Amino acid sequence: MQRILSDQLAPYTGRTVRIAGWIHRRRLLKSVAFLIVRDAAGLAQVVVTDPAVRAEVEALPEETVVEVVATVVTNAAAPGGLELTDPTVRPLGPPAVPPPFDLYRPELAATLPTQLDHAPVALRHPTRSAALRISAAAVAGFRATLDSRRFVEIHTPKVVASSTESGANVFDLDWFGRPAYLAQSPQFYKQLMVGVFERVYEVGPVFRAEPHDTVRHLAQYTSLDVELGFVTDHRDVMTVLRDTLAGMFDAVGDRAAGALDTLGVTPPPVPAQIPAVHFTEALRIANAPADEPDLAPAHERTLGEWARREHGSEFLFVTGYPMAKRPFYTHPDPARPGYSNGFDLLFRGLELVTGGQRLHRHADYLAALADRGEPVEPYAGYVDAFRHGMPPHGGFAIGLERLVARLTHAPNIRQVTPFPRDLHRLTP
Amino acid sequence: MQRILSDQLAPYTGRTVRIAGWIHRRRLLKSVAFLIVRDAAGLAQVVVTDPAVRAEVEALPEETVVEVVATVVTNAAAPGGLELTDPTVRPLGPPAVPPPFDLYRPELAATLPTQLDHAPVALRHPTRSAALRISAAAVAGFRATLDSRRFVEIHTPKVVASSTESGANVFDLDWFGRPAYLAQSPQFYKQLMVGVFERVYEVGPVFRAEPHDTVRHLAQYTSLDVELGFVTDHRDVMTVLRDTLAGMFDAVGDRAAGALDTLGVTPPPVPAQIPAVHFTEALRIANAPADEPDLAPAHERTLGEWARREHGSEFLFVTGYPMAKRPFYTHPDPARPGYSNGFDLLFRGLELVTGGQRLHRHADYLAALADRGEPVEPYAGYVDAFRHGMPPHGGFAIGLERLVARLTHAPNIRQVTPFPRDLHRLTP
Repeated sequence: MQRILSDQLAPYTGRTVRIAGWIHRRRLLKSVAFLIVRDAAGLAQVVVTDPAVRAEVEALPEETVVEVVATVVTNAAAPGGLELTDPTVRPLGPPAVPPPFDLYRPELAATLPTQLDHAPVALRHPTRSAALRISAAAVAGFRATLDSRRFVEIHTPKVVASSTESGANVFDLDWFGRPAYLAQSPQFYKQLMVGVFERVYEVGPVFRAEPHDTVRHLAQYTSLDVELGFVTDHRDVMTVLRDTLAGMFDAVGDRAAGALDTLGVTPPPVPAQIPAVHFTEALRIANAPADEPDLAPAHERTLGEWARREHGSEFLFVTGYPMAKRPFYTHPDPARPGYSNGFDLLFRGLELVTGGQRLHRHADYLAALADRGEPVEPYAGYVDAFRHGMPPHGGFAIGLERLVARLTHAPNIRQVTPFPRDLHRLTP
Repeated sequence: MQRILSDQLAPYTGRTVRIAGWIHRRRLLKSVAFLIVRDAAGLAQVVVTDPAVRAEVEALPEETVVEVVATVVTNAAAPGGLELTDPTVRPLGPPAVPPPFDLYRPELAATLPTQLDHAPVALRHPTRSAALRISAAAVAGFRATLDSRRFVEIHTPKVVASSTESGANVFDLDWFGRPAYLAQSPQFYKQLMVGVFERVYEVGPVFRAEPHDTVRHLAQYTSLDVELGFVTDHRDVMTVLRDTLAGMFDAVGDRAAGALDTLGVTPPPVPAQIPAVHFTEALRIANAPADEPDLAPAHERTLGEWARREHGSEFLFVTGYPMAKRPFYTHPDPARPGYSNGFDLLFRGLELVTGGQRLHRHADYLAALADRGEPVEPYAGYVDAFRHGMPPHGGFAIGLERLVARLTHAPNIRQVTPFPRDLHRLTP
């Protein structure tokens, strides 16, 4: 008899089926025992009345893996209106050692450090796994949106000979006796690949040796990187970003509806036109001094509230960040010297995406590096390529875990990351 | 006027359009000049008769990025039956420095080291970019096949505290002052995630500090990892692998038909039942001594020829590899002590996929490590999870670059890898 999943019972009403999964919970009442079995599709209720079967079930702690052969019957009082009766229960492994927290309670009552120390079991809790299902759906939406716009997926090196974003916060590596670094972003490679495909994206790990311990930083995170050529300026990039986010949230709604229910969240609508303010205007809104070179987290929060209040939008573009605070490959705003064609997208008052137009002329790269007193040599393999014809281009990078944390109202990014890596954590 | 791509000309016949791209080739004849423009969709032929425009074009070397506004006309002699006449040509950047090889020739006439040294431009050659389009299509097919079977995509740590496959061939890393390693595979994590989702997959980089320099090894490659629970044994895993490969090749045919044409290759049919031989039988077929513990590359080639000759199949499963040559988490064959429920899939006589059933009982892990004289402690976060209930499970890992190389008959895996990393190469 082929195993079926817990959400496939209905067509088998009145018949005998085989299901399998984890004992999510046992409720041992006087005259009857309920066995709740958890599988990939959800939960199924098994009713045990036979004393011999009950004795077997009593010896199987929660999380033991079992196979149940039983009859599907309707019961309006059962979850989903169906339950399984007259079962035989066969363990598929030894009795499980109970985890250090109860997985069957609606909330996972363990501190975050305890959850992370026991991640392989904590992630089985429906609230933790729901966040990861949302994450998978969001990535599927990211790819689907870009595939339909002729973007090509790429895979680029994660070990590099020179740092991409700045000399700080890189992990050092021994590469066959040579010094190397973990890539902080696929920035250079995605730009170079615009020369090949015009439009590219990559979903992959990036590494930041962040020396601070915050609720919104990880030392490894999943970056959703996009780059496209033949743009007029950063606004073309912002349009693609808007459509990509809309596609991601649509996919979450379509593919992870159950997970959204579990967490009681709804993806916010992405406005057809996301409101945008220039950096100088953002400083005014945030009551920050006009000579601030960047936005602090408190400023971003104020801007998030402002966008919700003034525009009814959970999203806000801030454009025109000062050149001094953006990487050397950033394209300046031709109309406002000192300001860039770079932007951030805030989602609920937190930077979720960084992007912008990039330099595309070789001479501009040489000048930008000279301006910053940086040598060209470490960047030669990247900068040299711009001698061979590159179109105006730009792109952005979305932090996946940050997006999911923000969407699910998780106070700490580690809650939506299966096995986080940070200053303190290298296991499991 | 909105830019259109070179494969969108037909509906505009008789009208003026704007295209943009790279000057792929100029042919400066006496009375007329042809400008071949390359964009994301292919090539477009522009006919220049105006002496002023011709003078401009003569100053723009190959690979210069240009925008062309011109009239679409039919010409049976032109590629695709259409060409662009009466153009204005506007460069979108400075004149390009010609690459060290001609990109417009049908074959890229440069040694592989030269191509790799100048990867950002070499990859623009239609034969090189075609392989990467095939790669993207194969990965799309991988995900689509597994998504339709309820697999969940995961993203796991690429920096780990202990090596996964063996103590050798790992890259050492300094993680905030602590020793760490680049992950050789997501093996442990994908198994742990079977406890959460039953069925998972990951597309991501893996790192092998391979000390040898061969045409089939990279130090970073893209691994397509799959793991599934509630299997009877490795044969259930082989069935999923067969269907996944079929889905990948179908997607390549659907999504990368032009790239296949460019390279003149056709994906081979994946037999409904891929032939399978036991390891002991494989040794006999390969005329290897019966006590060989593993298959050498020459044996694999012989087996590949045998599968084609005897079964008309480009694919061959070899099952039941000796336990001694498989990792400690491998499930033994209950019927044949010393042999495993592990398999390899050979594609055209080369190992493309490794997989098998894994141990799923905690006690079996302790015994397996003790047997090998290995301590449990470095694996504690992994092995401990098996105390909390894990179903019988197994999985496999496909090497993406190897698959594309084999499919496209590339003699060296580096030809289908955009920016390869190996013993010698860390740039670009």
